[in-house]
Amino acid sequence: MASIFTKIINREIPAHIVAEDEKHIAFLDINPLVKGHTLVVPKQEVDYVFDLENDALADLMLFSKKVAAQIESKINCERIAVSVIGIEVPHCHLHLIPLNTMDDVNFSRPKLQLSQEELQSIANKING
Amino acid sequence: MASIFTKIINREIPAHIVAEDEKHIAFLDINPLVKGHTLVVPKQEVDYVFDLENDALADLMLFSKKVAAQIESKINCERIAVSVIGIEVPHCHLHLIPLNTMDDVNFSRPKLQLSQEELQSIANKING
Repeated sequence: MASIFTKIINREIPAHIVAEDEKHIAFLDINPLVKGHTLVVPKQEVDYVFDLENDALADLMLFSKKVAAQIESKINCERIAVSVIGIEVPHCHLHLIPLNTMDDVNFSRPKLQLSQEELQSIANKING
Repeated sequence: MASIFTKIINREIPAHIVAEDEKHIAFLDINPLVKGHTLVVPKQEVDYVFDLENDALADLMLFSKKVAAQIESKINCERIAVSVIGIEVPHCHLHLIPLNTMDDVNFSRPKLQLSQEELQSIANKING
């Protein structure tokens, strides 16, 4: 069965997309730690990030670098943190998190509750 | 002034090294979240990970993939999580964290207190 991320890639379910190329998609996390928290997903459906072939792993990082620059230019932050945890959804994904304090990357804290309109507004800002 | 990581690379201060190549070094975090928590550092002293040139960024991930496989083969865990935060030491570094639960990557929780002997024993296990 297609992962929830593959359904987003196939436009079967909606997402607040901020970047896309042939091999990757980036969209806002709907349960963000901070505003601008983005997921970068390879279109190839691989569960564990280190099971990606070397070329695909390198490509994922280089695409994430571009997306991070795009986010950093639009969202107020010190820099963009990176996190790959991978026990939530069995389709590997890299979190890009606009960082101001260490606690911004604390996945154990309560997530922000943002409306669809707020998320779309953030996506538009990052895309703009 | 050389960063604390450059001093480790230059063997001016000790560390529990688990892997090294021409461009990178990997050693145990002395304040680990879990046993086997490792830092991967490019020898080039760059503060922000996304300021690395594309080749260097790709190389860092591919070296990390090798180190992650080495850790995973020796430390009991589901998989290896990746985190780059980068507001602790101004020399970019990638955390590799043996993961069993989401809270294992919670940087806001108290760190383990391990003796030098315990750390060395973990490094020997990973190297073994």
